[in-house]
Amino acid sequence: MKKPTKIAVLTSGGDAPGMNAAIRAVVRSCAYHKLSCIGVYRGFQGLIEGDFKELGPRTVKNIINRGGTFLKSARSKDFRTEEGRKKAYSNLKNERIEALVVIGGDGTFAGASAFMREFNFPVVGIPGTIDNDINGTDFTIGYDTALNTVVEAIDKIRDTANSHNRLFLVEVMGRDAGDIALNAGIGAGAEEILIPEQNMGRGRLLESLSRSKKSGKTSSIVVVSEGDEAGKNIFGLAKYIEENLTEYEVRVTVLGHIQRGGSPSCYDRVLASRLGVGAVDALLRGETNVMIGIVHNSVVSVPFSEAIKGSNAIDEELIRVADIISI
Amino acid sequence: MKKPTKIAVLTSGGDAPGMNAAIRAVVRSCAYHKLSCIGVYRGFQGLIEGDFKELGPRTVKNIINRGGTFLKSARSKDFRTEEGRKKAYSNLKNERIEALVVIGGDGTFAGASAFMREFNFPVVGIPGTIDNDINGTDFTIGYDTALNTVVEAIDKIRDTANSHNRLFLVEVMGRDAGDIALNAGIGAGAEEILIPEQNMGRGRLLESLSRSKKSGKTSSIVVVSEGDEAGKNIFGLAKYIEENLTEYEVRVTVLGHIQRGGSPSCYDRVLASRLGVGAVDALLRGETNVMIGIVHNSVVSVPFSEAIKGSNAIDEELIRVADIISI
Amino acid sequence: MKKPTKIAVLTSGGDAPGMNAAIRAVVRSCAYHKLSCIGVYRGFQGLIEGDFKELGPRTVKNIINRGGTFLKSARSKDFRTEEGRKKAYSNLKNERIEALVVIGGDGTFAGASAFMREFNFPVVGIPGTIDNDINGTDFTIGYDTALNTVVEAIDKIRDTANSHNRLFLVEVMGRDAGDIALNAGIGAGAEEILIPEQNMGRGRLLESLSRSKKSGKTSSIVVVSEGDEAGKNIFGLAKYIEENLTEYEVRVTVLGHIQRGGSPSCYDRVLASRLGVGAVDALLRGETNVMIGIVHNSVVSVPFSEAIKGSNAIDEELIRVADIISI
Amino acid sequence: MKKPTKIAVLTSGGDAPGMNAAIRAVVRSCAYHKLSCIGVYRGFQGLIEGDFKELGPRTVKNIINRGGTFLKSARSKDFRTEEGRKKAYSNLKNERIEALVVIGGDGTFAGASAFMREFNFPVVGIPGTIDNDINGTDFTIGYDTALNTVVEAIDKIRDTANSHNRLFLVEVMGRDAGDIALNAGIGAGAEEILIPEQNMGRGRLLESLSRSKKSGKTSSIVVVSEGDEAGKNIFGLAKYIEENLTEYEVRVTVLGHIQRGGSPSCYDRVLASRLGVGAVDALLRGETNVMIGIVHNSVVSVPFSEAIKGSNAIDEELIRVADIISI
Repeated sequence: MKKPTKIAVLTSGGDAPGMNAAIRAVVRSCAYHKLSCIGVYRGFQGLIEGDFKELGPRTVKNIINRGGTFLKSARSKDFRTEEGRKKAYSNLKNERIEALVVIGGDGTFAGASAFMREFNFPVVGIPGTIDNDINGTDFTIGYDTALNTVVEAIDKIRDTANSHNRLFLVEVMGRDAGDIALNAGIGAGAEEILIPEQNMGRGRLLESLSRSKKSGKTSSIVVVSEGDEAGKNIFGLAKYIEENLTEYEVRVTVLGHIQRGGSPSCYDRVLASRLGVGAVDALLRGETNVMIGIVHNSVVSVPFSEAIKGSNAIDEELIRVADIISI
Repeated sequence: MKKPTKIAVLTSGGDAPGMNAAIRAVVRSCAYHKLSCIGVYRGFQGLIEGDFKELGPRTVKNIINRGGTFLKSARSKDFRTEEGRKKAYSNLKNERIEALVVIGGDGTFAGASAFMREFNFPVVGIPGTIDNDINGTDFTIGYDTALNTVVEAIDKIRDTANSHNRLFLVEVMGRDAGDIALNAGIGAGAEEILIPEQNMGRGRLLESLSRSKKSGKTSSIVVVSEGDEAGKNIFGLAKYIEENLTEYEVRVTVLGHIQRGGSPSCYDRVLASRLGVGAVDALLRGETNVMIGIVHNSVVSVPFSEAIKGSNAIDEELIRVADIISI
Repeated sequence: MKKPTKIAVLTSGGDAPGMNAAIRAVVRSCAYHKLSCIGVYRGFQGLIEGDFKELGPRTVKNIINRGGTFLKSARSKDFRTEEGRKKAYSNLKNERIEALVVIGGDGTFAGASAFMREFNFPVVGIPGTIDNDINGTDFTIGYDTALNTVVEAIDKIRDTANSHNRLFLVEVMGRDAGDIALNAGIGAGAEEILIPEQNMGRGRLLESLSRSKKSGKTSSIVVVSEGDEAGKNIFGLAKYIEENLTEYEVRVTVLGHIQRGGSPSCYDRVLASRLGVGAVDALLRGETNVMIGIVHNSVVSVPFSEAIKGSNAIDEELIRVADIISI
Repeated sequence: MKKPTKIAVLTSGGDAPGMNAAIRAVVRSCAYHKLSCIGVYRGFQGLIEGDFKELGPRTVKNIINRGGTFLKSARSKDFRTEEGRKKAYSNLKNERIEALVVIGGDGTFAGASAFMREFNFPVVGIPGTIDNDINGTDFTIGYDTALNTVVEAIDKIRDTANSHNRLFLVEVMGRDAGDIALNAGIGAGAEEILIPEQNMGRGRLLESLSRSKKSGKTSSIVVVSEGDEAGKNIFGLAKYIEENLTEYEVRVTVLGHIQRGGSPSCYDRVLASRLGVGAVDALLRGETNVMIGIVHNSVVSVPFSEAIKGSNAIDEELIRVADIISI
């Protein structure tokens, strides 16, 4: 593959804090290597509609600290059709764009990989999702920020829990991955953490809460991952606990979309900058159909086929730590 | 009434950021005036159970910045019985406590006022609630902090709303008062604000959102007060909008208990300090059965009978401002 | 005066959080009243250089939450010359601009007032400065945010002060006004507060710190206003204390420019929105040469001549509260 | 070595956010393994003075979110004397304490290691310092929080820099290590970053700023590490730039002690929890004279002799990223 001279960048899927920092790094890295850089608005849909804008180093100033993605994101039904993808390819060709950087999650990579195979068009991915559910990278962009957002929210809820001797069930995001719940649960000092990788079950939760009460705890926070069986009906779980543990008043908070936004943490800004630079480096080395990830604090390339295999298993050491420190 | 030499302080009702700062001010004001100060744990229930602890100036150090109430709060069914109140009174007498400062909302003041009349026991109140729904004071302790918490949360949600061109319905607290919704809605740049004092109705909301869309807005935040008719079934409202405004994807976030917690804002810390000092001053002047409030930035005394009349009407100027700046 | 149909808006002097919210309110209020609105970049200098841009309601989206001023601010030596002001006037005339809204502090108002008298050009001001040193308004835009910034910074410093039993001198902004120091000092639980309105003197500070030590305090925060005599040589003060109070290790932190920035608090966003709407209202009522301020929570007009008289005296009640709660 | 049944824990050196979370993890891990746990106040000085307190799982509740160290820290001249250390040893023996966990930086580990050799007393260390300057661990407790604090502070300063087209020099902590400056500089979008590992020199800085100006940048942030040659006289550097680059107004902010405090980030809370659990595990395995660190996201033991060798070299990849994205 010859080295590209014009690169496009887009964001797709759920937004995550740090996506803007990643776009900025791609744009400035292009400027550094004297490549043109085109921003594609609204993800794959914008590719189909030709919603393009040239991006220079000054057009991305003052965005490193902003949540969301200024290129916007959108679902694209059209991109699932052959006709849609052909239109996308023809738009890229007409603009003389020679390679594409996509920032998003596994759905984004699956779409990009199919497009790559179909048209032999160079594509490199950057993992941007708060869920940390991508294989082949230790961390995804936005995950660290989401952890801080969750921990700060639970710190606030704990003020009330302590003041009233209450039990709070706090539902957090993460799709099928328990990473947010487990790490934020440890960080927030949760008494119990329910994650999809471990199905604790209502009975064991009840026993454990009962033990806590006896050991002198007067309030409790239970962090529930949205992907956990119990989390799928969190209000039902609350009722079940109240009926079976009468000492407790139970309250539910579903943290919701605040977890996707906010100014990115320093870690996410640095990670996004490294991966954005790494993506352009990879294209210049002639790589394609890979995701740029971070493993053991080094920037690496991982085939898309690996990345979309689903997340790594949950860390047993962390589960043990959670058990010990909630004693 | 002779000047008291020993004062008790308690917090009751929902917790609010700044309650600790108010307790601290009462305690240190007692020390300043060489009075003893007793902390009562768990509100009126602790009064009945004799859950008392002497508080000196050093015991309240490093709490001004903490949310919640270290004296804790609880509902007390027993305090609604004559027997319970008699027990409370006898505990106060046994401890030679001569006056009581209660920090809480209108329910707290109603209980305190009844107790005052029944036993002729001096009581002064301090308004502590995020809802700002107390008559006779411009602001309640915790309200300013809650506004900042809501605005910061909506800033995060807006990142996603902007990135995806979505409509978000955000439910905020406030009981029957629209103060939080109206002020935080203006502060967060909400497109529409639904408050109980104005029942906008679904039809008018739809028209207004439709106009916004035509004027070029690509995403919207609607702040819904929990007390508003529409807010009582916010998921139903979301469905109604999606069915009638097909251009929009609608999402719902119920902010919930994060609004009650968090480190108090500077304003709430200063307000709590002033009202705490004012409460002890009032007792030393021989006042009783009054709430200490803030009116036009001056500390005032208001009879409990006034304070519990329900909140002031909503400010028409603010509603006009909200209309103008969401154009 | 006939009602204007085209209005310009500029920011001048030191920036303050909430200036963007004020610009946004002026712009949208113009749109609401079907007036044209022109943004002038870089304050009076941009007026002279004709650095103008039409602002519509969508051009000010997503700025209510941002610190600083997107219209930028600058010192203008040229505006102090007759020639410069003539050029400014002629630019306004050429653009058919009929009235001007200036957002800034007393220097801004003095310049605007002189311009008004010289060319009989309608001008209305909005108080935007963190210092709260403008006469005729209870609060200036940015002040509440600066208080929260200072209090959060001192909360962090107190972690170290407590951990090491140290004395910290923390210098805060405010020019000749002690408002930031006094309110943030109370909010941060400072042991002593040095403000220009009260010249405590080194000797009395030493006595007071010595008393604190004896009463069992193991660490201390002293908030020093930049305008206070002692604050003008804060490192010298630190040395003086260490030499005379050997039990203490003393550290100095000058908070500096972090106090001017940051996302505005809800209060500042609402205040800025109200004053921005009020400024356009005033121009439509035919008012000129006035500042729009807030007094007892109502929007008022104050002649520039009043506004630039210097700030209100410091509140004696607050000084008493500070004394009592730092016992 | 037989397994200890009673363990003491202390914090020493500069405080860092997350130290409380580490203490909590040690205490609860002891409870989990049915060991007694003794908190030693004021570091090695408290060891000498016998300032001990038994810590149970409930005594460390609600501290995971607090900056500083509730066990306090202090310098101890006495611990540098043989007499002092003998007294410390005899206090440990009298209390039947069989092992010691020390939380701090390289100075702490050097002292602990000498004590270990002198009295053959089991000691394990946990790296707690914001500077990230400990060999053998990828991260130290407090570092991630400090990065976020610095980035948030510079985000605020940038509001003013942008509004006034100014150049800001921002001095950050880190002792001889440039880690804070480099990472926070990337995260804050700094134009230049001065670190001790690279001595850029004033001349090259000037050239670079000059190029930035020509490329259209209107404001700049330069992050200066306290350990850098240029950083040692930051006000002199400011003057030098103003004299040589007349287009710029230069301002200096020394961030100072706010960098040491604040509620720890989720990462630091989880890291501290893991290392606290790991320290007790190590003692139970019979290890001594080691620091528990994190390498490639796994908990490891590193001999004290390794840990105090000074920090790892700076990451060349990061320096390249910083260069590219500040284009």
